[in-house]
Amino acid sequence: MRLVVAGAAGRMGRTLVQIIHATKGATLAGALEHDGSKALGQDAGVLAGIGEIGVAVTANPLETLVKADGVVDFSSPVSTVQLAGLAAQARIVHVIGTTGLSAQDIGKIDAASRHAVIIRSGNMSLGVNLLAALVKKVAATLGEDYDVEIVEMHHRMKVDAPSGTALMMGEAAAAGRGVRLADVSARGRDGHTGARKDGDIGFASLRGGTVVGDHDAIFAGPGERLILSHKAEDRGIFARGAVRAVLWGQGKKPGHYSMADVLGLSDI
Amino acid sequence: MRLVVAGAAGRMGRTLVQIIHATKGATLAGALEHDGSKALGQDAGVLAGIGEIGVAVTANPLETLVKADGVVDFSSPVSTVQLAGLAAQARIVHVIGTTGLSAQDIGKIDAASRHAVIIRSGNMSLGVNLLAALVKKVAATLGEDYDVEIVEMHHRMKVDAPSGTALMMGEAAAAGRGVRLADVSARGRDGHTGARKDGDIGFASLRGGTVVGDHDAIFAGPGERLILSHKAEDRGIFARGAVRAVLWGQGKKPGHYSMADVLGLSDI
Amino acid sequence: MRLVVAGAAGRMGRTLVQIIHATKGATLAGALEHDGSKALGQDAGVLAGIGEIGVAVTANPLETLVKADGVVDFSSPVSTVQLAGLAAQARIVHVIGTTGLSAQDIGKIDAASRHAVIIRSGNMSLGVNLLAALVKKVAATLGEDYDVEIVEMHHRMKVDAPSGTALMMGEAAAAGRGVRLADVSARGRDGHTGARKDGDIGFASLRGGTVVGDHDAIFAGPGERLILSHKAEDRGIFARGAVRAVLWGQGKKPGHYSMADVLGLSDI
Amino acid sequence: MRLVVAGAAGRMGRTLVQIIHATKGATLAGALEHDGSKALGQDAGVLAGIGEIGVAVTANPLETLVKADGVVDFSSPVSTVQLAGLAAQARIVHVIGTTGLSAQDIGKIDAASRHAVIIRSGNMSLGVNLLAALVKKVAATLGEDYDVEIVEMHHRMKVDAPSGTALMMGEAAAAGRGVRLADVSARGRDGHTGARKDGDIGFASLRGGTVVGDHDAIFAGPGERLILSHKAEDRGIFARGAVRAVLWGQGKKPGHYSMADVLGLSDI
Repeated sequence: MRLVVAGAAGRMGRTLVQIIHATKGATLAGALEHDGSKALGQDAGVLAGIGEIGVAVTANPLETLVKADGVVDFSSPVSTVQLAGLAAQARIVHVIGTTGLSAQDIGKIDAASRHAVIIRSGNMSLGVNLLAALVKKVAATLGEDYDVEIVEMHHRMKVDAPSGTALMMGEAAAAGRGVRLADVSARGRDGHTGARKDGDIGFASLRGGTVVGDHDAIFAGPGERLILSHKAEDRGIFARGAVRAVLWGQGKKPGHYSMADVLGLSDI
Repeated sequence: MRLVVAGAAGRMGRTLVQIIHATKGATLAGALEHDGSKALGQDAGVLAGIGEIGVAVTANPLETLVKADGVVDFSSPVSTVQLAGLAAQARIVHVIGTTGLSAQDIGKIDAASRHAVIIRSGNMSLGVNLLAALVKKVAATLGEDYDVEIVEMHHRMKVDAPSGTALMMGEAAAAGRGVRLADVSARGRDGHTGARKDGDIGFASLRGGTVVGDHDAIFAGPGERLILSHKAEDRGIFARGAVRAVLWGQGKKPGHYSMADVLGLSDI
Repeated sequence: MRLVVAGAAGRMGRTLVQIIHATKGATLAGALEHDGSKALGQDAGVLAGIGEIGVAVTANPLETLVKADGVVDFSSPVSTVQLAGLAAQARIVHVIGTTGLSAQDIGKIDAASRHAVIIRSGNMSLGVNLLAALVKKVAATLGEDYDVEIVEMHHRMKVDAPSGTALMMGEAAAAGRGVRLADVSARGRDGHTGARKDGDIGFASLRGGTVVGDHDAIFAGPGERLILSHKAEDRGIFARGAVRAVLWGQGKKPGHYSMADVLGLSDI
Repeated sequence: MRLVVAGAAGRMGRTLVQIIHATKGATLAGALEHDGSKALGQDAGVLAGIGEIGVAVTANPLETLVKADGVVDFSSPVSTVQLAGLAAQARIVHVIGTTGLSAQDIGKIDAASRHAVIIRSGNMSLGVNLLAALVKKVAATLGEDYDVEIVEMHHRMKVDAPSGTALMMGEAAAAGRGVRLADVSARGRDGHTGARKDGDIGFASLRGGTVVGDHDAIFAGPGERLILSHKAEDRGIFARGAVRAVLWGQGKKPGHYSMADVLGLSDI
């Protein structure tokens, strides 16, 4: 599959170049950057630290996409919306890991998905998406006798709590039980709290060191605990998930897909 | 639902009496023991340490079952086969947690399940059965890029390794990948082992103290780990699972069911 | 060593009777209850579920202590202060696990310790006391490059957070660093918190199911984490620690000791 | 403190250059490689990916060491023995993380330590060395009622089991109990093992994915577990420990020190 990387000179873009280069059945067919980027004209492989691969970084997406089967894109909302339109014209696969998209942006992407295979997720990690699906299933199966607690740990520089992924786990548990997370969320437990309220979904956030990201979803019932954990070692897991997504997209019908579709989890 | 406990004076039987007594929608309608048991004639509640409940232990199963809706049974193979026949006559639910059943015993139970709702499992814990289903699903979804390791810890008196539950997890992972566990099982890693073989399912057994039973199924892939854990605090989890099973069985069609059916996991 | 149990008919008292009965080098020499207790005159072994042992429960402490070498006491402040005086008269060992003692009570116990060997702790578990000593040592050794987080999980009925043991770990970490816990304690992290403050000691409390008590002290530094964990399976650990303490006390000089003394940890 | 890195163009050498550059109170004063290295003459900062720092790689250790206060060395036995002699002449600090040293090599290093401050360890991580000291202390304190199990997990390419660090933990536990590890080591538990033998120290090795290195030392006793864990995120922890060691060595008396000395753990 001939693949294009958008934002090829950025940190995620360079990781994508490395992973595509190492993946059987994938070749790097193009490397995009914005107008005025210092990287224009440079070899994408050299930028990624894997040596020359004969693919120069360019600012011309149209010309690049027509010669490709798919584009992997962790760029910016403006660029992503434009690329979705071009992917629709070229009838290729567009994997979107870009964050900060507005409802209007998503509307345009939806329109493009009538002609392109678009796979979009706020978190492209296989493990995290699988974990969310499992949390939903377990919450639905065990019911409210099993108390749900979500714990996460991240490095000392992280400025918000709980993490987006922890909230994603909480949403999954709430969906499994058929409730709204906002109605049952218990955060920042401290002091004289009283006994735990039935149905609460608790969150706790740990911060320290250089931890990339650990998440536990705990189901604590009478006499037993079931714990579903994810431990991230590096940020390459997002790039690997995106490459798996683009390979999955080849030959699919145009449409707007999620990582759950890629993993075959929609029916859990 | 009017329930009978078989082996009511044993350790598991007394736990069952306690749990049935504390469960909404369930009443203890009978308590069985074998002929010659010292407990015959005694009150089942007194034996279970919850005070008199007006149910005397008896050795007459036929008379007891005809007045009941279900029987929960962790007794012996001989007794279980007999009870299955009587449950078929009485057209009630029979939950079987008995271990050591022969193929012939299971044949007779199968025959009885034409008229009785029979739910049978080697491990009645909700958490363990759910974990096995999740392990199978994850193994099927992630594929061989993610190495599977099963770790368990039990008290110092346990005489065999790995635990039956660990092997159940290994079987689930192998089934998810469509391989036979015997072909890929890696046990007792020690010394100069060489690099891990692709597709291996590893086992490790820890022993110490008074640990009731911890199990981890680890899926270790590039840059991330997904870990599914179960921690048992007491042996009451088997009794609780059995009571949930018997309640689930009420009104079902006759047949031979598993805990996966009770938990709605057959389709994972 | 001839031992007396105070509050012998209570939950902790009965556990103490069991453990003393099973400990080499220890015999039950007396069993105390308050005046008017229904247990007076009953056999302490029968009450503890281990069969008759020929020790009747009595309300006469003086007579009981003079024939003993030590008394283990998880009773009430009033009773504990009285027993300390009697232990001083009898020049025996007095182990105190009683909670809720006032400063005045402790003054009286101090006075008694001129003639009795008194060992007193708010938490008699060997593991917890050892953990606290280790946390102090690690905090002193690693310094502020290693962020400290204390996490605990307890059953759903617990009404306050963090647990007393978690606070004990926090105090130990603060002492190791030479700071006051109140100045660096970070509890209930939630929302836009900003980056972690240097020197903070964080707390998180999880609640659910029937968990007896898990505690983790995490030291997260650049590229590595050191985690010290304690997992309690049952409340018998307090009784076992108290019995170890009373055996340790035999032959020691009169004085007011802690579990750190018993464990030989004062010099860590 | 003016520091020299031996093997400056290797993976560990480049990490050392980065860390020294980022450490207050330290400057890079020299960068050594063997004769014939392609890196000779290149800037050590450029090689380390942090930009030019004005220190060229050279093959002349004598000239380099006389202008320095310390040398950090993860090179080869031959080179390390030579550097120890030069460090003695220059009366500076020599930190040795080199592996594969023979008894004869160590004899020569010992001789050099009459004039140089030499700090040598098979594992320079602060966390691992601290963990070993804690394991020894806990094993000595808790005694044989608490069963010791050492579990480690490493990436799928590791070819031997247990890891060197796991064996270091086992040695520490054995030393704490006053026994020889070879007499009590239980590895590769599998099949019908019988109950755990009193005093055994068990090992289990997990392999999978890209795990850098996790170690748990579990002390499982009656009703409780104490677990001491170390989790490595990257191999930079060895470089950071070595830099901490060299800073500690400044101003110390000549001698042959260990990381336990650096961490002030000799007296635990």
